[in-house]
Amino acid sequence: MKEKGLLIVLSGPSGVGKGTVRKEIFSHPDTAFEYSISMTTRAPREGEVNGVDYFFKSREEFEALIKEEKLLEYAEFVGNYYGTPVDYVRETLEEGKDVFLEIEVQGARQVRKKFPDGLFIFLAPPSLSELKNRIVTRGTETEDVILNRMTVAKEEIEMMNLYDYVVENDEIERACERIKAIVVAEHCRRERVEPRYIKMLEVE
Amino acid sequence: MKEKGLLIVLSGPSGVGKGTVRKEIFSHPDTAFEYSISMTTRAPREGEVNGVDYFFKSREEFEALIKEEKLLEYAEFVGNYYGTPVDYVRETLEEGKDVFLEIEVQGARQVRKKFPDGLFIFLAPPSLSELKNRIVTRGTETEDVILNRMTVAKEEIEMMNLYDYVVENDEIERACERIKAIVVAEHCRRERVEPRYIKMLEVE
Repeated sequence: MKEKGLLIVLSGPSGVGKGTVRKEIFSHPDTAFEYSISMTTRAPREGEVNGVDYFFKSREEFEALIKEEKLLEYAEFVGNYYGTPVDYVRETLEEGKDVFLEIEVQGARQVRKKFPDGLFIFLAPPSLSELKNRIVTRGTETEDVILNRMTVAKEEIEMMNLYDYVVENDEIERACERIKAIVVAEHCRRERVEPRYIKMLEVE
Repeated sequence: MKEKGLLIVLSGPSGVGKGTVRKEIFSHPDTAFEYSISMTTRAPREGEVNGVDYFFKSREEFEALIKEEKLLEYAEFVGNYYGTPVDYVRETLEEGKDVFLEIEVQGARQVRKKFPDGLFIFLAPPSLSELKNRIVTRGTETEDVILNRMTVAKEEIEMMNLYDYVVENDEIERACERIKAIVVAEHCRRERVEPRYIKMLEVE
């Protein structure tokens, strides 16, 4: 009758700095959640260790796992697969531990369907907040640059829709603090805490 | 077009330590919200300062304010009135600052009706978590003690219903940290952040 852990999903537009923020979070000794290591078919980069940075797999191995439904989510980028092994996530949550995923936006969409109760955090580029300034100072930029920036911003804002929280990556340390605060707060949500107390009363 | 502040309401059963937690929160120099000082008709205790600990008022003054609807909430305890002046709360929120109230459960109920979007935090006694142990070790306690404890616990759990978050006051410093985390998280909620971005795009 152990309480299940919380599934925490960090995502956001590519290039926003998800990996950097995730590394920073897990460099803190007081971080109380488990990182789910992704699986990929891309070759390890210098210094990357199998089972630490990624689980490195061949294309055949990866496609077999897709068929066996062993991936919580996966996506293909520039010819390489990236995905999340589902067994680790389920087992760790069952143990009552929080699991942290850092994944692409498409992956987050797949996870939302399977874990609607997960905690979905969107990491937003600071450029989004600068949008207004950019428009105001339009004299200094060409129409094309502004229009392009507006289109990208619209797409980024539309992506947010799926998420519970939005954290701006204005400064890595601040973004990490906010993400950790969100996890602490989520554990205090009444809907989560109340049933625990009610269950206590039902013991007899 | 300034964004409004957040109304933060800390409440919980009497004797749970709301005042102590509130004082601890406001002793931190980094606390970024404003404390709404309560009004009371009780006499100042030694060391209490008018306009710091409370606004001390006569019964006549207090009843006039009730009539003029100048109180966001009020209640009578042991022959004395306690209440929250509404103007300060509204003006401070309009300035875009978060306002923190530390009030009784009846008062919180009144505030919920007027500010459904407020952030309501229930401070729970640690004895509630010990309930299970107490029942398990029932051999050492009389039936009456256990039944009484169960009744009180049921009432306390029923009180929670109105709140967004439950924070156990197991240790003051930890309770404060969790309350501050909840405020940080609340500011990152997508429903709160997204409209700000959408508004930016509408500038043109």
